[in-house]
Amino acid sequence: MYKNILFATDLTEDTEYLIEKVRTIRGFTGAKLSLVHVVEPLPGYSYAYLGIEDIEGQLIDEARQSMSKLAETLAVNKEDQHIEVGPTKTKILKIADDVGADLIVCGSHGRHGLSLLLGSTANAILHGSKCDVLTVRLPEEE
Amino acid sequence: MYKNILFATDLTEDTEYLIEKVRTIRGFTGAKLSLVHVVEPLPGYSYAYLGIEDIEGQLIDEARQSMSKLAETLAVNKEDQHIEVGPTKTKILKIADDVGADLIVCGSHGRHGLSLLLGSTANAILHGSKCDVLTVRLPEEE
Repeated sequence: MYKNILFATDLTEDTEYLIEKVRTIRGFTGAKLSLVHVVEPLPGYSYAYLGIEDIEGQLIDEARQSMSKLAETLAVNKEDQHIEVGPTKTKILKIADDVGADLIVCGSHGRHGLSLLLGSTANAILHGSKCDVLTVRLPEEE
Repeated sequence: MYKNILFATDLTEDTEYLIEKVRTIRGFTGAKLSLVHVVEPLPGYSYAYLGIEDIEGQLIDEARQSMSKLAETLAVNKEDQHIEVGPTKTKILKIADDVGADLIVCGSHGRHGLSLLLGSTANAILHGSKCDVLTVRLPEEE
């Protein structure tokens, strides 16, 4: 049914629930799995003002480490791990095209916490995607 | 993984592609399947003006017939077929609650045709849903 699944991950801790779902769907379908995480560029003044050098580079490094762990957990090859810098929607859809994804899996919070950010990402993916999208409702934090 | 799938169908012909997906997912998961279709109430003046009586009743009758066929194709029991009148989002989410759905499947067109209607329905479901949502990207019509 699905041959190429792209897991759009925000790499935060609460994706463990999501990881289990991704693992199960992959098991059901026998699909190839790719990972994508997008680092949104920060406006220049915010870190120049703080005197922090190359905060983007630091974010990318951290993302790379987190993704390595995730990839190990899910047995995803190095070449199927994608870290992108740019607008989340555009980048996820670009990678979806590149890997020929027929299903994008992403998480969505409810009304609390990160809902606006994640909700709008899921929403943007949904509207722009050329393939199916599975939005996993993440459990609310206490 | 999923135990109660709710298929939110618009009952138009192009759902055949969707039907196959629903059938496959159900096969994978062994989940119970329910169907819901929502008839949006028309503003009173639009049919009063045309001299048509009970157009809502006609729409419901037609929907019931189409849903019977769909239910036969997918082997869904009578009591798991839901036709509702009201705002699409609210009604779908209500039925999702009622049947204890853990996955809602709905179709979404691209930019053409019914995109605005279906896109916004899928979007509304996504934002309001307490469970996972699989949005199936329907093939564009020629």
